Amino acid sequence: MPDAPAASDCVIALDVGGTGMKGAVLDRTLTPLETLRRPTPRSSGPDAVVDAIAAALCGLRDHAEARGLTVRSAGAAVPGIVDEAAGRALHSANIGWSDLPLAALLGEATGLPVALGHDVRAGGIAECRIGAARGALDALFVPVGTGIAAAILCDGRPVRGLGHAGELGHVVAEPGGARCACGSRGCLETVASAAAVAAAYTERSGRPVDGAARVAALVARGDPVAVAVWDRAVDALASALATVSTLLAPGLVVIGGGLAEAGDLLIEPLRDRLHERLTFQRGPDVVRARLGDRAGCLGAGILAWEAAGSGPMAVGTEHGIDDEFRTTVSVEETHAPDPH
Amino acid sequence: MPDAPAASDCVIALDVGGTGMKGAVLDRTLTPLETLRRPTPRSSGPDAVVDAIAAALCGLRDHAEARGLTVRSAGAAVPGIVDEAAGRALHSANIGWSDLPLAALLGEATGLPVALGHDVRAGGIAECRIGAARGALDALFVPVGTGIAAAILCDGRPVRGLGHAGELGHVVAEPGGARCACGSRGCLETVASAAAVAAAYTERSGRPVDGAARVAALVARGDPVAVAVWDRAVDALASALATVSTLLAPGLVVIGGGLAEAGDLLIEPLRDRLHERLTFQRGPDVVRARLGDRAGCLGAGILAWEAAGSGPMAVGTEHGIDDEFRTTVSVEETHAPDPH
Repeated sequence: MPDAPAASDCVIALDVGGTGMKGAVLDRTLTPLETLRRPTPRSSGPDAVVDAIAAALCGLRDHAEARGLTVRSAGAAVPGIVDEAAGRALHSANIGWSDLPLAALLGEATGLPVALGHDVRAGGIAECRIGAARGALDALFVPVGTGIAAAILCDGRPVRGLGHAGELGHVVAEPGGARCACGSRGCLETVASAAAVAAAYTERSGRPVDGAARVAALVARGDPVAVAVWDRAVDALASALATVSTLLAPGLVVIGGGLAEAGDLLIEPLRDRLHERLTFQRGPDVVRARLGDRAGCLGAGILAWEAAGSGPMAVGTEHGIDDEFRTTVSVEETHAPDPH
Repeated sequence: MPDAPAASDCVIALDVGGTGMKGAVLDRTLTPLETLRRPTPRSSGPDAVVDAIAAALCGLRDHAEARGLTVRSAGAAVPGIVDEAAGRALHSANIGWSDLPLAALLGEATGLPVALGHDVRAGGIAECRIGAARGALDALFVPVGTGIAAAILCDGRPVRGLGHAGELGHVVAEPGGARCACGSRGCLETVASAAAVAAAYTERSGRPVDGAARVAALVARGDPVAVAVWDRAVDALASALATVSTLLAPGLVVIGGGLAEAGDLLIEPLRDRLHERLTFQRGPDVVRARLGDRAGCLGAGILAWEAAGSGPMAVGTEHGIDDEFRTTVSVEETHAPDPH
């Protein structure tokens, strides 16, 4: 067993999204000591994104070292298809890279061991270790935003399969339904993503809305078009989760992303309709995510600690993370100076 | 590490089905040295079934000892909801037991360590270690018979979840379709099980058939009703497997059970239609199972060797199991004398 981390040890972690990056220096209890948010220069191409990731990590490393901390390792969570074990970013239509040895490239740039993670799976790991699914071994983390994805945890480990496991948004919810960007029809995310909910309301009512939060507000006020759109989304989500329950029997489903901001307006009917659809199957509890948009960064931090030899059991148990931590942690909007 | 098994070491294994039990004395290469088949006395109630299981295992043990072998442990695979780790048979509507400490009861009866397994998961373990999915870490074993079940292996381990994971037969294939015995509608097994295929042919043609094998023969001859029934079953299976591919991205699907006896008449169109339904997802290969109705018993044997301290890596590698083994192994119809 490697040594337990010292109080002056830390890791650095970065969650790379299609529009922005969220980074943090995390101590051994996963408390952020420094945070960073900056845009992802996606329009400048994949090489520029790799440079920006390296620059963000180097910036975090320098901040940590300036505080007298020892940076044990780095973690980076990225979208698309990721081979965590090989440290390769296999594909991202969004960012445009293909079969990139990203962990090695970032290792060279930072001089640190780098753990590569998948954004949604990293978020799922964080929700399972220190968030809403803490202690659960068989759970689903489902961010419902512009799209719908899932991190499927079986026996405490995220399922990868051939690489694209967890694409819940592309389970067919309405056979023969609307064309999806993936080329299929009636995919769950054509009905139940935050983007689909907003678009369906606009289409049916003729009144543009700026997002699903607005539709949720209209549902709360009893707007009949909003209620119909919301019901259809909840039904489609319940149907897809019933399929997952039948196949995998998870004990817990954690809903995150923009749509989860609606809170019980989403969670309660979703839980009820899921359970109505099940017969012999034990239904999972359905709860709202707790880590918000920090999940991916905290997950990258957990992967970094694991790469440093601090196993997952250490996080959230020995390290004294408690409920208070999760409500007080806040990754601030601190535009750190670009070291380039 | 425990000692490697000696040449005179063996395990005993039993697969308990709703109608019959299949048992074997298995050496360290999983070669059967003795086999046993006998009916499951289901109509006499669960206590009688437990007694019969114990008697079958004691019989196998005695046979092995009479040959001068050392029985290291026993494995029993049973249907229903099984908690393998706790050694408990939680529920079987078919056999009628409920929350039974079966491993402990059989341990007392036999004087051996007893590993309890789930019939389908044990079969999946056997197909993955020494059968059609040998070497695959992310695979599905799908026996299609009277019902449809699945063993889902993620990273080499069968998924249990809350206990009923793998109920592929109860994924909804035709929303609003025929009532299923489970209480839901349009479950995959109402369309695509061997029993459903035979029933649908009889209903549409007015001509009773004795099973899906007869329907398959009619398909091969171009009987239009048989072709339509078969197509619908293949479509429903392809749809359910597309959902599984989207969620879990397995590399391989192994089809077993009675319907797989149709061979390429089933496997080829199923593989094609599954791949047609996928867009960005990498599709799994679809192949026929290799261990036939011996899979559950061999899986129970693998669990028994694991209980004896011989890890799964030992099976099929160090122990020299090769392709020849799988084609020459035959669990014979040897009605061993009942020791009671």
